[in-house]
Amino acid sequence: MPQTPHLERHFTAGDVVRDIVIGMSDGLTVPFALAAGLTGGQVNTRIIVTAGLAEIAAGSIAMGLGGYLAAKSDAEHYASEREREYREVQEIPEEEMREVAEVFESYGLTREETWPIVQALRKRPQNWIDFMMRFELGLEKPDPKRALTSALTIAGAYIAGGFIPLTPYILASKPSTALLYSIAVTLLALLIFGFVKGLFTGMKPLRSALQTALIGSAAAGAAFAIAHAISE
Amino acid sequence: MPQTPHLERHFTAGDVVRDIVIGMSDGLTVPFALAAGLTGGQVNTRIIVTAGLAEIAAGSIAMGLGGYLAAKSDAEHYASEREREYREVQEIPEEEMREVAEVFESYGLTREETWPIVQALRKRPQNWIDFMMRFELGLEKPDPKRALTSALTIAGAYIAGGFIPLTPYILASKPSTALLYSIAVTLLALLIFGFVKGLFTGMKPLRSALQTALIGSAAAGAAFAIAHAISE
Repeated sequence: MPQTPHLERHFTAGDVVRDIVIGMSDGLTVPFALAAGLTGGQVNTRIIVTAGLAEIAAGSIAMGLGGYLAAKSDAEHYASEREREYREVQEIPEEEMREVAEVFESYGLTREETWPIVQALRKRPQNWIDFMMRFELGLEKPDPKRALTSALTIAGAYIAGGFIPLTPYILASKPSTALLYSIAVTLLALLIFGFVKGLFTGMKPLRSALQTALIGSAAAGAAFAIAHAISE
Repeated sequence: MPQTPHLERHFTAGDVVRDIVIGMSDGLTVPFALAAGLTGGQVNTRIIVTAGLAEIAAGSIAMGLGGYLAAKSDAEHYASEREREYREVQEIPEEEMREVAEVFESYGLTREETWPIVQALRKRPQNWIDFMMRFELGLEKPDPKRALTSALTIAGAYIAGGFIPLTPYILASKPSTALLYSIAVTLLALLIFGFVKGLFTGMKPLRSALQTALIGSAAAGAAFAIAHAISE
């Protein structure tokens, strides 16, 4: 499907940023919160590190493979919808021509104004199908390399994020000491990550930094409170 | 922005299904893998339940708030891009008219065939901007309720999924016994979830069921192996 270079750049950057944001948000937050929670649950650092590494393995595989399968299923959905549009253009062209006209009428154009386009598309069935996929159904042709890239990006971002809160527990022997260092380095990492995320996604960087740090704090606080209540 | 009812249905269903899939995939998988990992790490069920509940709290908050902020940032991105299109339509209308023509030319239409549409849009600046947002930039107007719905859907699906693998550890006192029941109920849940997910997303349900069970098994296997290696 032909796309303007502008559009393609727009979508590619958005997807990769979205994947890094998904992976690193959870990677920084969940192992951080789990380790904090277990510290509240009166557990030694060996168990916290074991749980943290198990969580990083599980989380990166689950999210990476999750991303892989989501992208694969998008690609299959596109293929099956395209097949259906192909049949409809062959079998009920009058109906499909009406649908093209309706797309334009929803932008306030009259039937007379849209008629030349409807006629022109009718002469080019392949372009017509591509047009319907994008403009009637709102589906973009998926990039075949997208599934693997998405999986590796999410998993890598999760692992990179996860080791930041866990490292103090690997280095320190006392959980309460490790927790303090873990809070310090993870809050700093969340602020930096949130700031950079803001620059990429067009959000105000400072607001993004504070919001991201707040999510991590909320998750860690909830995990600590729950684990502490159980261990009483 | 006016949308055909068909399109709106398509997108709404896709987003909710995507959110449930994101939340439940990880909710079923990560607490399952963490509990299995800690069983491999020679830890008692009290600690496994503590870690599991801390993980469910952390994971649902991180993913729910993550979904919330992602949807919010989509909405802000849309608003800032629309502002830019508005300015461009005012300040450089000739350039914008050329861009409309290019959208159609990428579908094989000639400049003569697209000219009536370009002229018609020029007469209706609001519709023109809406048209550019969707057809040049490929951006859909976000639903304002979407951010909160997305957050609650992801978090709820995560919690619902997470209690399935954890319940055997709450009921049984011996970790190895709990692990066997946890594997049985979670594999069954993953197969059912994968099957239903397949029905919604247009994938072959049986293939989806097996793939989903495989992700859970891979994550749990990796977590078990890592935790077991550390505890040696």
